Amino acid sequence: MTDPKHLGLQIQAILDSYQELGGISFTDGDHLPSRNSVQHILTMLREILFPGYFDTTPINSTNLQYVIGQKIVTAAEALCAEINKILVWSAKESRHDVNPSECRQLAKLVTSEFFDYIPTLRTLLKQDVKATYDGDPAAKSEAEIILSYPGFQATTTYRIAHFLYKRDIPLMPRMMTEIAHSETGIDIHPGATIGPSFCIDHGTGIVIGETSDIGHNVKLYQGVTLGALSVPKSKSTTKRHPTLGDHIVVYAETTILGGDTQIGSNSIIGGNVWITQSIPENSKISLSSDYQQLIKSGRISKP
Amino acid sequence: MTDPKHLGLQIQAILDSYQELGGISFTDGDHLPSRNSVQHILTMLREILFPGYFDTTPINSTNLQYVIGQKIVTAAEALCAEINKILVWSAKESRHDVNPSECRQLAKLVTSEFFDYIPTLRTLLKQDVKATYDGDPAAKSEAEIILSYPGFQATTTYRIAHFLYKRDIPLMPRMMTEIAHSETGIDIHPGATIGPSFCIDHGTGIVIGETSDIGHNVKLYQGVTLGALSVPKSKSTTKRHPTLGDHIVVYAETTILGGDTQIGSNSIIGGNVWITQSIPENSKISLSSDYQQLIKSGRISKP
Amino acid sequence: MTDPKHLGLQIQAILDSYQELGGISFTDGDHLPSRNSVQHILTMLREILFPGYFDTTPINSTNLQYVIGQKIVTAAEALCAEINKILVWSAKESRHDVNPSECRQLAKLVTSEFFDYIPTLRTLLKQDVKATYDGDPAAKSEAEIILSYPGFQATTTYRIAHFLYKRDIPLMPRMMTEIAHSETGIDIHPGATIGPSFCIDHGTGIVIGETSDIGHNVKLYQGVTLGALSVPKSKSTTKRHPTLGDHIVVYAETTILGGDTQIGSNSIIGGNVWITQSIPENSKISLSSDYQQLIKSGRISKP
Amino acid sequence: MTDPKHLGLQIQAILDSYQELGGISFTDGDHLPSRNSVQHILTMLREILFPGYFDTTPINSTNLQYVIGQKIVTAAEALCAEINKILVWSAKESRHDVNPSECRQLAKLVTSEFFDYIPTLRTLLKQDVKATYDGDPAAKSEAEIILSYPGFQATTTYRIAHFLYKRDIPLMPRMMTEIAHSETGIDIHPGATIGPSFCIDHGTGIVIGETSDIGHNVKLYQGVTLGALSVPKSKSTTKRHPTLGDHIVVYAETTILGGDTQIGSNSIIGGNVWITQSIPENSKISLSSDYQQLIKSGRISKP
Amino acid sequence: MTDPKHLGLQIQAILDSYQELGGISFTDGDHLPSRNSVQHILTMLREILFPGYFDTTPINSTNLQYVIGQKIVTAAEALCAEINKILVWSAKESRHDVNPSECRQLAKLVTSEFFDYIPTLRTLLKQDVKATYDGDPAAKSEAEIILSYPGFQATTTYRIAHFLYKRDIPLMPRMMTEIAHSETGIDIHPGATIGPSFCIDHGTGIVIGETSDIGHNVKLYQGVTLGALSVPKSKSTTKRHPTLGDHIVVYAETTILGGDTQIGSNSIIGGNVWITQSIPENSKISLSSDYQQLIKSGRISKP
Amino acid sequence: MTDPKHLGLQIQAILDSYQELGGISFTDGDHLPSRNSVQHILTMLREILFPGYFDTTPINSTNLQYVIGQKIVTAAEALCAEINKILVWSAKESRHDVNPSECRQLAKLVTSEFFDYIPTLRTLLKQDVKATYDGDPAAKSEAEIILSYPGFQATTTYRIAHFLYKRDIPLMPRMMTEIAHSETGIDIHPGATIGPSFCIDHGTGIVIGETSDIGHNVKLYQGVTLGALSVPKSKSTTKRHPTLGDHIVVYAETTILGGDTQIGSNSIIGGNVWITQSIPENSKISLSSDYQQLIKSGRISKP
Repeated sequence: MTDPKHLGLQIQAILDSYQELGGISFTDGDHLPSRNSVQHILTMLREILFPGYFDTTPINSTNLQYVIGQKIVTAAEALCAEINKILVWSAKESRHDVNPSECRQLAKLVTSEFFDYIPTLRTLLKQDVKATYDGDPAAKSEAEIILSYPGFQATTTYRIAHFLYKRDIPLMPRMMTEIAHSETGIDIHPGATIGPSFCIDHGTGIVIGETSDIGHNVKLYQGVTLGALSVPKSKSTTKRHPTLGDHIVVYAETTILGGDTQIGSNSIIGGNVWITQSIPENSKISLSSDYQQLIKSGRISKP
Repeated sequence: MTDPKHLGLQIQAILDSYQELGGISFTDGDHLPSRNSVQHILTMLREILFPGYFDTTPINSTNLQYVIGQKIVTAAEALCAEINKILVWSAKESRHDVNPSECRQLAKLVTSEFFDYIPTLRTLLKQDVKATYDGDPAAKSEAEIILSYPGFQATTTYRIAHFLYKRDIPLMPRMMTEIAHSETGIDIHPGATIGPSFCIDHGTGIVIGETSDIGHNVKLYQGVTLGALSVPKSKSTTKRHPTLGDHIVVYAETTILGGDTQIGSNSIIGGNVWITQSIPENSKISLSSDYQQLIKSGRISKP
Repeated sequence: MTDPKHLGLQIQAILDSYQELGGISFTDGDHLPSRNSVQHILTMLREILFPGYFDTTPINSTNLQYVIGQKIVTAAEALCAEINKILVWSAKESRHDVNPSECRQLAKLVTSEFFDYIPTLRTLLKQDVKATYDGDPAAKSEAEIILSYPGFQATTTYRIAHFLYKRDIPLMPRMMTEIAHSETGIDIHPGATIGPSFCIDHGTGIVIGETSDIGHNVKLYQGVTLGALSVPKSKSTTKRHPTLGDHIVVYAETTILGGDTQIGSNSIIGGNVWITQSIPENSKISLSSDYQQLIKSGRISKP
Repeated sequence: MTDPKHLGLQIQAILDSYQELGGISFTDGDHLPSRNSVQHILTMLREILFPGYFDTTPINSTNLQYVIGQKIVTAAEALCAEINKILVWSAKESRHDVNPSECRQLAKLVTSEFFDYIPTLRTLLKQDVKATYDGDPAAKSEAEIILSYPGFQATTTYRIAHFLYKRDIPLMPRMMTEIAHSETGIDIHPGATIGPSFCIDHGTGIVIGETSDIGHNVKLYQGVTLGALSVPKSKSTTKRHPTLGDHIVVYAETTILGGDTQIGSNSIIGGNVWITQSIPENSKISLSSDYQQLIKSGRISKP
Repeated sequence: MTDPKHLGLQIQAILDSYQELGGISFTDGDHLPSRNSVQHILTMLREILFPGYFDTTPINSTNLQYVIGQKIVTAAEALCAEINKILVWSAKESRHDVNPSECRQLAKLVTSEFFDYIPTLRTLLKQDVKATYDGDPAAKSEAEIILSYPGFQATTTYRIAHFLYKRDIPLMPRMMTEIAHSETGIDIHPGATIGPSFCIDHGTGIVIGETSDIGHNVKLYQGVTLGALSVPKSKSTTKRHPTLGDHIVVYAETTILGGDTQIGSNSIIGGNVWITQSIPENSKISLSSDYQQLIKSGRISKP
Repeated sequence: MTDPKHLGLQIQAILDSYQELGGISFTDGDHLPSRNSVQHILTMLREILFPGYFDTTPINSTNLQYVIGQKIVTAAEALCAEINKILVWSAKESRHDVNPSECRQLAKLVTSEFFDYIPTLRTLLKQDVKATYDGDPAAKSEAEIILSYPGFQATTTYRIAHFLYKRDIPLMPRMMTEIAHSETGIDIHPGATIGPSFCIDHGTGIVIGETSDIGHNVKLYQGVTLGALSVPKSKSTTKRHPTLGDHIVVYAETTILGGDTQIGSNSIIGGNVWITQSIPENSKISLSSDYQQLIKSGRISKP
């Protein structure tokens, strides 16, 4: 339908614009990390971590070792290859000399360490499942959580990404957690530290910033933000996000901000609260919601 | 790239970990419900409920009966098969004896009842579309709502899942609504009761708990939570979520909690409100937002 | 497994229901816009706008012009075809006479204008990337933003959709932004006006209404609503959503409502704030969050 | 790996060669018949002719009418569209004026006639199956013939293509039988006339020319040629291939040539025979193969 | 484009014809063997027999055991399932009572025996490769034979199918060799007996009948037929095809017919020969092809 | 269905057999040429040689240069990669030291030369099309030949493969022509020399040996063999196949054998003839087929 001549000119104009705005074009095709590959790696890892729950072919005692073995081999190759690409890309970006064999060595090392970590990771995730089951009256079984809870899905991805973040792999950890963000509405920065038995209930809108530090047995509801007070870009390496102790519940839509803000252990933080200063241990904070108060304060107009 | 010997050891270690953490492995491959199948069933049901809106082949008067007929046959088989798998799995989980023929009978019965229900379901959904069209000044046509509104998509999935929840099919209803949750950011528990002419505007972050009870002509904005006050797991069968009457509007980011909390009919609940006690009929609740008040209360620092 | 006879009756009942509820059936197959096609167009446009970032085949200097050229040809054909379908459909819906050749002409014109617009659009998006990089301490590189930031993904889709909205193409702009809404949890109406150097941080739950007007260098956090106070459907063409000046930051979960509400330039609006009246330039609004105040107001129950 | 600059020159040289050798380039993309489409049409027709034998989804009494109905609708559309394309192309090739609406009318007419013909075609094919079963001692069941005999596959395709050949549809009939030729090694020109109860045993290498005329109950073995004596191109409309009566068997590798050559009914033609003149009814022709003769004629060198 | 009403009538007429011609319809969908499945099984078996030659993912020492292990598990399940379907179908066809558990037992037994047979089969195939390499001056490597020789491909399929034929599995062996027939133009009946070190050169048009008996180190060229003299269907269980001893070469287009015809060991049979009687050991048979003879016999018309 | 333990043992036995029969296992995964890749390269080359005839997207003046340009880039990369793999593999096979950079250089060089050759190749193929059109009265158009003639398809593949054969690329040329052999039943060794204006009519069963030498304007019918008299493997480099001059027709099923056998120009060789000695120019050879002779020689038994 379109006019070929004019379209030809438009194509040329668009191609020309690639020369001018290098920053958003990437035409050195070999070494950009691929979102599709990262997503596929996450899918394989989830099938390895929870055998039988997400596989397209049913897993049984006959095929278990072959299916999983093959999946691990494939996932390891893919992870290693993507890490290598990212390291090469990152070295180029930083204007450093690229040492290809060094990149390859590091990619192999981190990949190998990651697969050594999997049994430990499974133990952690098992604890997260249990904490979620115990903490959600609506949960009918642990299988329901593994199969369908977005909070657990985001936590799984975070724990994978965090491992790579700690090994200083650039870009990929964030790509991983943003994939989970897109799928679940839960945004956990891979740099955050989150202890065992973590539970997210409902979860949509949760934001956990890069330097957050969360203890064990913490439960967050939807819309909770563990965020930063505004800091200049130059301070991007300081602690900008809050610290939560152990055995804490934070109800929906609560915002906790600041690198110096600490929530003491065994506290319950009510929903829709805005917190920029520390809270001692064993606190219970909640918005008052008494009907009489609402009338007094004029927030309800009587019928 | 990876070292085959070490990888072999890692594979064995991971396989071993499957023995130790049974709860998050599932290697009895035949009977775990499949998230992909459930998602595919939802896709087919949506194409059956709204013929012509989502089909990859255009529907016309020539092919309508064949395309839809075949889709119903396929969807019925798939639904019946998944329900059967879930019933067998569920019986095993509960340590009950599994009676395969009983499971099969029940799966057939519920499937058949569901397809009997479809014309009624279409009537309900038509009312939801109309309510959304009437309630959203930005809606240019009913087609726009069917094709693109996440709120309507989540409502459709909820109404399907609720039917199965009422027939005591485990796991699948929740998997269905969590699929919608992932796609829309709207989390409606399949156990909730929602009357006709339901309207969700924008919708991201909405949470509607398992024992919520919502009347007809209710409209919810993004970020609204109908949640539970904390209860122990043992009380998971009591009413834990609020009751909303008819003709109610709840604005964005409002949180309404508790099984005894009732919002009277014909009420308008302003945004960002936190409610844990009942509100009478015809109430209008809103946060004050007067500029002068903001200055007085020190919440604005003058320029 | 299912009983063929009964299923036959059910199929007939469902087919019958299509006659009765025309509004949610669409059996005039040729001219309904296809969500899948719109999604595919968006995917291609993203690959054209950011060459090398999202392509499944790596882009390099050898294949750049062919891959991109072919992609533009394909995208232009697809865009033109979908616009044409929508114009025909829209004319039918409006009970107007359909003039097929006029629809085709308009579709070609708008498509051509859109591809003329791409270099300008790339300049705008480059500014958005830069603003996001400058505004987010956690951002390690511009590539990270292009590859993984949901806020930037939603902004890209909005800027595409807004172009079509301004040319009065029905349905498609909204379908586009709702696709982004589903992928990112960010809901920007294609009718909104958004200036250059726009930055969304985290983003889940952001709602920007149809008649919002946003200046340049504005930054929004998750859960921000630029919404309407309730208006009757009949007023759907008036300005119902707020106006924001330049150099403004709005923190998480803030709600700003109303067509007359203006936020002055150089203001910082704290999180969880509810605003329905105008705010002057250079304002700083924030919820107080002092621990002592919380105790005084009884919002913390001491340990 | 390749050198981009040199490759660019090569691409240009190849593009230039398209200008010079128009005959083997086709860049008027809309109207060339597609081999893939023709192949897909044949696949659908085979599934319609033999329901349940080749379908990827099992056919049963529940889904029969929908699956087949939908398949017929799809196949009819595809056949009609390809015929239309071919008619337009053919008109252009012949330097005739193209009358698009006339092409469309004819395409619809022939398609409709073809589907009217299907029950008759099924009767013919049923007779071919029976003749093959009766004629091949190795055939264990009729299903074996339908599922696996290349001779029957080629006959089925021929009978479809012959129908279109008789309606003067260009190109497509030959494309159809050449597809079967590629799959079976059996080359039946769509112009040939073949009576009922036709049987091909083994079949590889069989050639049946355009003006061959074959009666009923004829059986051909592998490598049989019904060919033409050399004629100039200008005589391409005269009868160039032989005529076979009824109840005839032709054994392997026999060659029968010429438009005037007639094989009388009830004849048996031995293998490896070369025939260019007519044979009366009830003949039995065979190469002698006596061991003594072979020695006498010196064709065996004694041990 | 088509007229919906008339098409509806046509569909009904075609559906009606299914009632009348049961023999070529199969609407008892569960138990018809599937050509696609049989083809897929053959593909998997070829990948198992020749690891690394045909796999889409490269096989290396790291992934060998997992890839092959998984492939064997999958192939065993598929083979077992298809055999079971065929046994049930066959029992129905024969008007026998179907004993499902007996069918299943037999399917499992034969499948298990087949996988026990694979190492032996590999030894046989290795000998065939070697014989082909030794016998064809054009063969540059054994890999060339495995990767590209149609004769070896047909032999591989025959040896698989023959195993199943000997265990009295109906239909499937013939389907297998007809698949190879379609791919290679070589038609070996699964009932034939073929000794080790078998070599097919070029191969197109070779036919080897059901009761043929071939010794070891036999080499056949293209177009060779080992066929039957005409026998009535009732004699289908007698030996109808020839017997070849060891160390025999049969050149192109030679036809050897009859169950009593024996070719003695160490014989060389020249091309285009027609043989219906036995040939003693150590014979050399060839057509004379002397230029002078050709002139004398008038078979060459001088220039 | 299968017994996991026994299957485990079977898998081990099969894996063990891989150790013992190295020749037919290939577990050094990186460097075996892939039949699928070679097939895909052929498909792309055919689309480049005959633009618009085989593409899945229609080619038109708007997209021609992009589609073809991209296809050439992709095909060049793929061809270069496969050639490189084959050179590495071949060096290993020959127990030579592998010089990877030398292999890469040669792969690039040959690939580049091949794409330089394409315009010339198109001229040759255009002549083959014309010769076929002129030589076959049944051919209705040149498009019919390009789209559906197996003889032309085999010739195209041969001309591609021959180019690579002349550059001493191992394995791939033979894989290419065997792919064509499987698709068409025509077996042309890539080493054969074939002049311009070559025509194959029908073609199934044609064999053209490695050292055949064919002049220009030669036409071969189905079943023609240009073969070798038996030679020991050690003589595999001598001329073993016949030489044909110019303007020669060879009718069906004729066999011409031997490296010293020459068929003089302007000869017509009748069908089913067996030739092992040279034939002078301008000869006409044909089998007599007089009905009276047939009776006299006792080859017809009267009715």
